[in-house]
Formats: sequence, C-alpha cells, structure tokens
Amino acid sequence: MDTFFNPRRVAVIGASNSPFNLGSTICRALNEYSPWEGDVFAVNRKGEDVCGCRGYQAVTDIEADVDLAVIITPAKVVPEFVEQCAAKGIKRIIIESSGFSEGGEEGRAMQRRIDETAKAHGIRIMGPNCLGVLNTRNGFCCFYGMQPDNHHDFLGDDGTGSVSFIIQSGGIVVIVLESFTMDVVKANKIVSIGNKSDIDEADVLEYFEGDDSTRVIAMYLENIKQGKKFIDVARKVKKPVLVFKVGRTSEGARAAMSHTAGMANNDAVFDTACRQAGVIRVNSISELHSLPKMFTHMPPLKGRRIAVFTNSGAFGGITADLLVQSGLEMARLSKDTQEKLARTGQIFNASNPVDLGPAISMQTFLEIFDILLSSDEVDGLLPVPSLWHPMVIDAIVELVKKCHQYGKPAAIYTPNAVHKTVSYRNKYQVPLFESPEEAVRALRVSYQHSLNLAMKQGFRDLSLLSAEGGKNCGGIR
Amino acid sequence: MDTFFNPRRVAVIGASNSPFNLGSTICRALNEYSPWEGDVFAVNRKGEDVCGCRGYQAVTDIEADVDLAVIITPAKVVPEFVEQCAAKGIKRIIIESSGFSEGGEEGRAMQRRIDETAKAHGIRIMGPNCLGVLNTRNGFCCFYGMQPDNHHDFLGDDGTGSVSFIIQSGGIVVIVLESFTMDVVKANKIVSIGNKSDIDEADVLEYFEGDDSTRVIAMYLENIKQGKKFIDVARKVKKPVLVFKVGRTSEGARAAMSHTAGMANNDAVFDTACRQAGVIRVNSISELHSLPKMFTHMPPLKGRRIAVFTNSGAFGGITADLLVQSGLEMARLSKDTQEKLARTGQIFNASNPVDLGPAISMQTFLEIFDILLSSDEVDGLLPVPSLWHPMVIDAIVELVKKCHQYGKPAAIYTPNAVHKTVSYRNKYQVPLFESPEEAVRALRVSYQHSLNLAMKQGFRDLSLLSAEGGKNCGGIR
Repeated sequence: MDTFFNPRRVAVIGASNSPFNLGSTICRALNEYSPWEGDVFAVNRKGEDVCGCRGYQAVTDIEADVDLAVIITPAKVVPEFVEQCAAKGIKRIIIESSGFSEGGEEGRAMQRRIDETAKAHGIRIMGPNCLGVLNTRNGFCCFYGMQPDNHHDFLGDDGTGSVSFIIQSGGIVVIVLESFTMDVVKANKIVSIGNKSDIDEADVLEYFEGDDSTRVIAMYLENIKQGKKFIDVARKVKKPVLVFKVGRTSEGARAAMSHTAGMANNDAVFDTACRQAGVIRVNSISELHSLPKMFTHMPPLKGRRIAVFTNSGAFGGITADLLVQSGLEMARLSKDTQEKLARTGQIFNASNPVDLGPAISMQTFLEIFDILLSSDEVDGLLPVPSLWHPMVIDAIVELVKKCHQYGKPAAIYTPNAVHKTVSYRNKYQVPLFESPEEAVRALRVSYQHSLNLAMKQGFRDLSLLSAEGGKNCGGIR
Repeated sequence: MDTFFNPRRVAVIGASNSPFNLGSTICRALNEYSPWEGDVFAVNRKGEDVCGCRGYQAVTDIEADVDLAVIITPAKVVPEFVEQCAAKGIKRIIIESSGFSEGGEEGRAMQRRIDETAKAHGIRIMGPNCLGVLNTRNGFCCFYGMQPDNHHDFLGDDGTGSVSFIIQSGGIVVIVLESFTMDVVKANKIVSIGNKSDIDEADVLEYFEGDDSTRVIAMYLENIKQGKKFIDVARKVKKPVLVFKVGRTSEGARAAMSHTAGMANNDAVFDTACRQAGVIRVNSISELHSLPKMFTHMPPLKGRRIAVFTNSGAFGGITADLLVQSGLEMARLSKDTQEKLARTGQIFNASNPVDLGPAISMQTFLEIFDILLSSDEVDGLLPVPSLWHPMVIDAIVELVKKCHQYGKPAAIYTPNAVHKTVSYRNKYQVPLFESPEEAVRALRVSYQHSLNLAMKQGFRDLSLLSAEGGKNCGGIR
C-alpha cells in the first residue's frame, strides 16, 4: 500500500495539452506547486510534454522505472493502458476514469479485462471511478482538478494533520478538504477508492492503523465490498474509526448503487457489524470532519457522568436534554463539591448544570475547572461559555491545558453564531464545537471509543461496564 | 401589546452613570444610535442625566406622559418602582431585573407585591428576568448591553426582516441575532419574556399573528405557562409557528426550571398539543433561525414527492435516505419525464436522484428546472449543486425565480464547506441551506405547515391527505 502514498516516479496516463484535460491538472500540481519530490511523466497520443513533465506516447517508452501509474483516459482505452503498465512492470495503478461497473455491461466487460491483467501480473489497482490519493505528509496528490489555492489550503500544512480518510466519492472529498481549512484538526491522508475493483476500504483501514502519523480514521462508504474482511480488519484497529454510510433506506441504497456500482448491503446487518467490530457509525458528513478533534485535542472520555457549566442559563436545560438522550448522564454533584463551587463566590447555581452567571472572573473560571476536573463524581465536562468578553477565550485556552493535566475531556460549545465560534477556533486553536448537538455527540463518540477499546482488549460484559458508568474503562489506555 | 413595540415616551428606571450600569446601555442605544424616534427619561437615585437622557429621582417627577417603563434595578427595589409607575399612570412595564420567582421565597413575595399593584391599576407587565423588546421596524430596542455594532447589524435593516421571535431566555436572543447577520432572512420583532409573571407566550403569539410585517413566528420556550390558553391561541394562528422547547427529559426540565422559574410540563402532552394546534416543534436552536427562510423565500410545499438533482453523485444517496427518514418521498419520474431529462443531453442518470454529471451548462440547468417544476409527478425540489463554477450560482438565482413562477419550492443545499455556502448566500441573497439535513428539514417543515393549514381550515381526515401524497393541499392557500 505504501507505494500509493509515497511513490517516487509517477506516470500520468491521459495527461495532455488539450483544453479541459484533467490529467494535466495532476501533472501541474505535482510538478509545479506541490512540495512532493519525485518525477512525473505524461503519457498521451502525441507524446507531448505537459506542464514541464516529459511526454511519452506509450508507458513502455519511459526510460526510468515507474512505481505508480495514474490513468485518467476515456474508459475504453483503460484496459490497453493497464496492459502497457504490466509490460513496463508497474505494480500499482490508480484508475480515475469512470464508466466501468457503474456503466452497464460494456463497462463490466472492460473491468473484467483489467482484473485479469492485474491478477496475472500481481498489480494492485485503486479505483476505477475515483480521485486516488492525497498525502499531506509528503505533498503527493493525484486528485484531478486541484488548484494552487487548494494545495495551499490542504498541503501547506504545519504537520498537525492527523485524521486520515477513506472516501468512496470524490464530491465528499471536496467538502471534507474545504471544511478542514476552518478547523483545528487537519487531514493526514485521504483516499478516494471509487468502485473498489481491487483495493477496498478494509485494505486502506489496515494501512492507516499501521500508519504512525494517523490518529483518527474517518470513512464515507456507499457500500461494503467484503463484509467479513472489513469486520476482521476493523476488530484489530485500536484507533478511533468513524463511518458514515449511505443506504439506511432502500431509496438511499438504490441511489448509492447507481453511483459507485456497489451491492446494496443490509443496513441493520451493517449496523450490528459495526458495533461488534468497534466501529463508530456517525450520522452526517459533517460529523466526519467535526468530531475527530475530540480525539486529537482532548483526552478520552472514560465514563458517562458529565458536568455542564454555562453563563447562559438556557443551555443548562438544552444540554441536559441532549446528554440524557444520547445515553450520557448529568453528573450528580455532592454537597461537598457544590459547597466548593459556591465558595468561588460568583456563581448562580452550584448544582449540575452549574450556572455561572454573567460576570465571572478568570480566577473563578480556573477554580471551577479545578473543582470539577478533580472531582471523582465527574468523568468529563460540557462547558458552554458565551464569548462575550476577551477573557473568556483565555479561560478556554487554560481549560484545554487542564483537561490534559487531569486526563478528562471537555467538549466546549460557545453559544454564539457559528461564524464567530469558527473565527475564535482558528485564531486560538482550541477545539470548539459549533452547536450543543455536536458537542454532545463528541462526548458520546469519545465514550463509545473507550467502550470499544475495552471490548477489544477483552472485556466481554459490556452491560457491566455501562452499569458502572464506564468506571471500568479507567485503566484501558 | 402594541405599546411595548411602539412606545413614544420611555422611562428607564435604574439607568445611571455608575460604571457597568446596564440601564445606561439602554439609554445610550435609544438616544444615540437607534433610529427610533421618541423620548427617553432616566430614573436614578441622584436624578442625573444619562447619555443625554434627562434624569429624575422618581418616576412621578417626569413632567411628560410616559407610556412604557423599563425597570433594571436590583430586585428588592422593583416593587416600589412599580408602585411609582402606577402613581404616574404608566400602564406598560418591562422588568428586566432578575431575582424573583427563580430566586426563592423572598423573590416570590416581591413578585406577589408587584402582581397586586399591577392588577389594581390595570398595568401589563413583561418579565421579570428578561431582555424585553426589539422592534426592527422602528428601531426600538430595550435590550441591555447592546453595542453600536449590534444595532448596525440588527436594526440597520433594509425592511426585509419578517421573522418574529418569542424567546424566553436572553442568551438565546444573542445567538439568534448574531446568526441572522449571515442569512437572507432577518428578524422583525424579538421579545424576551423571561419569567412571564403576566404577559406570556400566548399573548405575544396572538399579537404577532395580527402583525402585518411578521410572516413567520419562532419560539424558544422553557415552559408553557397556561397550556389551554396557548393551544387556543395557536389553533387560530395561520402563520408558520416554529417552537423549540427544552425539557424533553426530566433532567432538562429540572435545569430549565431553575433558570426561568416555570413549572415543568409533561413533554409528551406538549408534543401532542403542538400537533393538535398546528404548531411545528423543531429540534434545535439553529433550526429556529435556519428554517424560516423556507417560508419567506420559497412557495409552500404542498405534497411529499421530492425530486433530487445533484452534480455530486454521493448526495443522491444521502438525500434519499434523509427524505425517506423524514416522511417525505422520492418522486417517481415517469418514462416521459426521464426522456425529457435525457434529451437535455448532458446528464448521467435521469431517474430520481437525477445525476447531472460534472460538466453541465446554464442552458441545461434551466431546462432541467422547467422539466421538474412543471411535472405533476413532483411537489418540490432538493437541488444539490456544488459551487464549483460561477455559473452555478447564476443558475441558482434563476431557480429561485422559477420556483415562485411554478409555485413549488426548492430547498437548495450546495455541497461545499459551510463558510463558502454562507458567503454565497449573503452575496446573492438566495436561500441556501448549510447541510443536507437542514434542507430536508426545511422541506418537511414547509409540508407540515401545509398540512397544518389544511387541518385548521377544516380538513378532518389527515390520513387521507397523507395517503394522497398531499395533493389535496393543492388549493389551501
């Protein structure tokens, strides 16, 4: 798998100087503005150079060894180019062209011809009908249609990107990449696997589990190719795996089939399989990019008992509803803890949800953080501080540090318009969530991962674990 | 009620020049930068002028007639000032101070004294523990703590604001106002009713129904004061009413009680009552400000059958799942309609969801709009066009016009990062939704309002209406 992410010499088959040629956008990106250091060759009918990449009429004309071919030609000539690649000894091919299994009987026949060639020569194939690979670690990207601006946004990375994606559809890749420009966590690697004629979600999942720079794995799937293989791999994965899968309804499954040519899967079976394999199913595309920061920027949640504190009383009720509905609990604060809180002298209500009142000082904020995080009645925090004063964001920065110090997480929601929250998040690089719903989901998903890890490490009796408020998860990491 | 929204002479009781005085922020706003034209008087211990407003030691010292008093003093002196107002002949009072029914026995005793004075003198009271009123039509605003920037954002209105809000909590007011700065629909009037010792949600709801410049009514409630009164009023309301109520769980209800001193309501009873009264219950605060544009910027949805079209195939499956789960339907396109679509020459898949493929022209967009909107197989559209080219937003502008022309709505979701969608929405003033979930909810809520109107106008057999795909709603407006 590693060659797909770290190739040294790449042939882009179908890159030419024709107007609107998609292959040329790949050549330009790799040769002109990507930090990736490697050689690119363009293969086209005329053998012309493309964007500074040396041109050839056939793959076999390239003098150097090539470790990866990217094919982006009309479907009908793809089988022939795969055979050229085989003749040249290339073992890794990404086929971005569409028109195969999703394109009727003719397409399926071409697919079979490709499969036979690949099998005979030990070639591994990604796609067809995909965007291929983006690796922010070395700047390698064979997505077609990228612009210099995109590269700046996604690859001009400071090395913090730690979420890797397996995404069946190119359209979803675009949203995820755009969304990351406004968040504290960035992409590490992205793979668009398309029709999955050979390499599938399970292969990439296994690779990401072994990839040191990947901390969270997020997947968008329209179908599962081989259920048992996926489950067997997923069971062994210790990193958090978030999956959004379409096809919860028969209408959705039908639409997905026509898109990337999969078999419809029984959704209830998939749901059960995910639970048994310790894979977390998420409810929307936006959760795929909003939730990972709970794993990368906070310690794990190891129990259900959450303390809420807010300077906007309404959110006490709103978050209590959401927490209980999600299967978490409002922590019961003892008299002793409530007295400690009351002694800070500025708060309205010391029971959970703690109502801070409007005029709290930095010192009081810090005292409250210590009281709640040090309490053995509390597993995690849901702070809802309105950004009404510059001091509040300073307090949040301190809170993030204290969470790591105490080993308990906070899912922070600032009750302001989303654009304000996002701008503070970017400026101060703190993991703020954009709605109370999202913050509660982040806590729930973090707790679920703790339960999953416990299960994978041999706790059989999950009901016991739950009944104990997750306290048994205490020692699992 | 009208005096609360259109007063001519207002006394702000508790406005002084002390540091951090909240009343002075009201005086400053009304006197210095609000477009409201009226007189403001400041009442404080020293009788000093505040921000250019003439100062008095007692309400009774004011020479002119006063039609509205705003009280923002410590709770313990509020009863005395209410008595002064009575002596002065003031019939409308907004009490912004907190510390009454939500503040224990002492607070409740003060509340009783205020109630007696009000009753004896025919005074109507809003609050206590509230922000009072914002009326964008005349610029009147007695919210404390507003800044010139806020006024510019919320009151510097071009007259398009047509959503009026009843919001029990001040914290929610702030989010709603901030969010509207980034949307195509703006606030018309906002009332924060707090503890509702006298004027409650039903009174304001009735007023908004009769208010010509209000088109949609949105409510945030922590409790219902008088269930029967609310239902009786709501039954008669023909405008769309969206309600978010906390207290779905007992933990949430408990937290809300400590905030604005209400009785917990049985949530299942409230749910049934809303259904019977034709009130639409929404699921989050963000729906209160994101969904109204479906009513203000689109014709109503009168049936369940939705046609999806997208240039990002993944969203065909995602939206099909969401539509079916929400109780709407994927429209079945006849062979004839599919052939018309196919003849446009550029699309991948002519069955619903219609997959446009990546390279569609403006002309094709327009043809597709006409084919789908004119089809009697389709009640509404869910377009998911990615903003990959400037032409796409031009096509969306045309689509909005065509929706009005055909009398069928479209809930448009552009599958891009939210910040990009929001910036296009503001620039082109088209009703774009920020997620596929939100777009589907908008359709569902629009359809629900059509059903509610049918019910209110005498259709008894809603099951028939549903079975017919809502076609019977055709003539209801």
